[in-house]
Amino acid sequence: MRIVGIGLGLIGGSLLLSMRKLIPEADFLGMDIEPAHLKTAKSLGIIDDIAKDALVSSADIIVVSIPVDNSAETIRELLDKVSDNTLVLDTGSTKSNICSQLVDHPKRDQFLATHPIAGTEFSGPQAAFEGLFNNKTMIISEVEKTRFSLQQRAIGLFDQMQMNIRYMDPKEHDQHIAYVSHLSHISSFMLGKTVIDKEKDERDISDLAGSGFASTVRLAKSSPQTWTSIFKDNKVEVKQALANYIDNLQAFQKALEAEEFEELYKEMDNTNRLKAILKGINS
Amino acid sequence: MRIVGIGLGLIGGSLLLSMRKLIPEADFLGMDIEPAHLKTAKSLGIIDDIAKDALVSSADIIVVSIPVDNSAETIRELLDKVSDNTLVLDTGSTKSNICSQLVDHPKRDQFLATHPIAGTEFSGPQAAFEGLFNNKTMIISEVEKTRFSLQQRAIGLFDQMQMNIRYMDPKEHDQHIAYVSHLSHISSFMLGKTVIDKEKDERDISDLAGSGFASTVRLAKSSPQTWTSIFKDNKVEVKQALANYIDNLQAFQKALEAEEFEELYKEMDNTNRLKAILKGINS
Repeated sequence: MRIVGIGLGLIGGSLLLSMRKLIPEADFLGMDIEPAHLKTAKSLGIIDDIAKDALVSSADIIVVSIPVDNSAETIRELLDKVSDNTLVLDTGSTKSNICSQLVDHPKRDQFLATHPIAGTEFSGPQAAFEGLFNNKTMIISEVEKTRFSLQQRAIGLFDQMQMNIRYMDPKEHDQHIAYVSHLSHISSFMLGKTVIDKEKDERDISDLAGSGFASTVRLAKSSPQTWTSIFKDNKVEVKQALANYIDNLQAFQKALEAEEFEELYKEMDNTNRLKAILKGINS
Repeated sequence: MRIVGIGLGLIGGSLLLSMRKLIPEADFLGMDIEPAHLKTAKSLGIIDDIAKDALVSSADIIVVSIPVDNSAETIRELLDKVSDNTLVLDTGSTKSNICSQLVDHPKRDQFLATHPIAGTEFSGPQAAFEGLFNNKTMIISEVEKTRFSLQQRAIGLFDQMQMNIRYMDPKEHDQHIAYVSHLSHISSFMLGKTVIDKEKDERDISDLAGSGFASTVRLAKSSPQTWTSIFKDNKVEVKQALANYIDNLQAFQKALEAEEFEELYKEMDNTNRLKAILKGINS
């Protein structure tokens, strides 16, 4: 068994480590655009060695975890050269473009489009850890376009990682995830910016910030490269989600201006439902 | 030694528990507008008993932790009747109105205006715990207006709780805290509302939400009563902070629209500075 990781950051690295635990006898090889990542990934035991072209082509599983605006192109090139029994899967945060760009590839049935709903604000192989995916949701798009035996190869592993598998249409996925994930990153990044711009003295932020602020801006520590690429790829849905968010903030501002405090109370009380909705999801 | 808590929720309850650990021989009495809170506070050992008027008047320390729009009035009434050696302190998230409303009280020197930068998204006495304030910042406003011996009584305790004490002008405090705390709550509540409004099926939120979303909306679980009261009291500063936040989100939206991805990258990269600024603050 040979498993190859293309992109050895937080997600790719963690997925390889999880597979490693399940299939310790397999060879794990890797590629990364950053030479330093390759070195770190090797020293941390994420991979045994750097992947060479010939070994990639005959791999059993290739995991592609790179910025989403490059994924379709990279996967097309991989599919062009892989053996008949190789499974290629991507883990990107958007599914619509990648699925539509690969729909006509003659080896489309060797590709599986996935999105594990897991991560931290850290990035790079040093942030990867085995167990990141335990009990997390794994979304798979267009599963019926993947050859049955290759579906099973991946899903068997996800099951053993105790992931909760959900199947979603790529367009639906991108729409929902724009709200539930991508928008949170914008709200965090811009909250962080607003506070940094205001507080010329960074000591004032450290001294006054409680765990509440830290939690709300945690995602503003995320990789700008990963997120620029996601916003680019999911532009239309993200714009809509952001427009709705701005509308709600403006309505809040207006109610504050008009001193409609009863109204503000009701909105907040209603939003408290998140307590029940998010029960069991650690922040 | 007799210590009385007026308002036995998360903050008041935790402060009493912390004092209890330091002065186990003191009597702890309490009042709360909610009869259920009183009962819970007693059963959890936050207080020994319900406070009676006469015992309140001769207390050594009275801790007032109630919604901020009622604090000044309540403290005025307390000061009117307390003995010459009683210290009254409040813990509210706004300091400007309370300080200006009490400035002329004949017993102003028996009042200390504080704001511990600590909390969780939970509320009520059941959410209180000893240790909430360890290593947190304690802001004190207009310290020089409090009688020296009474300053010492409070500060001695805060020191023993390992709090980092900072002195701030009340207006400055309200301005800074509008950015570093109050705005985070609005951004969370409105993010939660945006997602709830979009996702008619709450299962979709639970399934798709990762720890990132959960962290960003954690504060949207906070008490609507506490927060309506804070927004009311700090309206002017909160409006300004919110206006700046909306401006930044609109600029983000415009850059997305114009496909200025290099610009978005730079903004996010710059905001990554929060990693260093918030080092050591748990989210």
